[in-house]
Amino acid sequence: MDPRDHLAPPDADAPEETLYRGRWLSLRKRGRWEYAERNNPGGAVIVIAVTPEDRVLFVEQYRVAIRSRTIEMPAGLIGDIQGQEDEGMLLAARRELEEETGWRSARMAFLHQGPSSAGMSTEMIAYVRAFDLVKVGTGGGDASENIVVHEVPRGEAGAWLFARAAEGYSIDPKLFAGLWLLEHGPTA
Amino acid sequence: MDPRDHLAPPDADAPEETLYRGRWLSLRKRGRWEYAERNNPGGAVIVIAVTPEDRVLFVEQYRVAIRSRTIEMPAGLIGDIQGQEDEGMLLAARRELEEETGWRSARMAFLHQGPSSAGMSTEMIAYVRAFDLVKVGTGGGDASENIVVHEVPRGEAGAWLFARAAEGYSIDPKLFAGLWLLEHGPTA
Repeated sequence: MDPRDHLAPPDADAPEETLYRGRWLSLRKRGRWEYAERNNPGGAVIVIAVTPEDRVLFVEQYRVAIRSRTIEMPAGLIGDIQGQEDEGMLLAARRELEEETGWRSARMAFLHQGPSSAGMSTEMIAYVRAFDLVKVGTGGGDASENIVVHEVPRGEAGAWLFARAAEGYSIDPKLFAGLWLLEHGPTA
Repeated sequence: MDPRDHLAPPDADAPEETLYRGRWLSLRKRGRWEYAERNNPGGAVIVIAVTPEDRVLFVEQYRVAIRSRTIEMPAGLIGDIQGQEDEGMLLAARRELEEETGWRSARMAFLHQGPSSAGMSTEMIAYVRAFDLVKVGTGGGDASENIVVHEVPRGEAGAWLFARAAEGYSIDPKLFAGLWLLEHGPTA
């Protein structure tokens, strides 16, 4: 595929070892490289959603790993529900959007997929754009989540995120990627 | 700090356990949450750099975790050199930019710091903008790296990244965050 794969380091062909397998994550190793891997290999999907009132949807929740509240776009794991492991990316995106925000999307478009932190993880993150939103519920996530929904006017979204960061919220830079894809991606 | 910290789940105050400590990464657990942590806790820094010819600097390298070539912005760990663990973020950014690309920056500005994947990792990523670039070397990284430098006209950077993704390169969405910060951040 890539004409420069011959520049790959010798580690690339070393056997892969599992150093530890947890309930949700494993720590793996290839050559001298260590990395985390989700035991559910489907990856995650982030939903870029704008309401008919031109407001971008964000969700606020507490993340135990970093012991901090975060602002994120609606997101979830692909195929993390027992018995639905083969659900598609767009299906997962639609489900998470509705569970977390109460908005249902009639049409979704795949925008991009890439690694979230290729130096230490195999996690792949996809972005989809949700169109034609209709409010069907209150959101808030499933029973294990405690999610606050924010609807922010599109033109103020960047400044709003920086204001939340200044207040102490953790803001994943992937949110700014979401804004870039919103500004430069398909509009309908 | 955050008036809504009382909404944190009970897991937030569970004791932290180390499930496994590797050479570079550890797998840790708090309550029912598992996450990866770098043994070097300084975090990473991404450098948004534009040459005097208005070209954005990208680096191409092979990432063993995902067994794929990636396009990234110049980046590195803060304080990962033995004896220099307390080097500052801007110092690390300047060093990595020069090592990887051969460009030296006379002035750097901090833009943002946030988690790279708060659901599974404690890693924090900072973005800095490099100004006043002067070419001082060829780049290519240190002895363990094999880095190809790309200089892409600023207005074509987004399309160029999508073209590389179509060729099979892995493109971390944080690159689009870098472009957003370039478009909306300080210009000098």
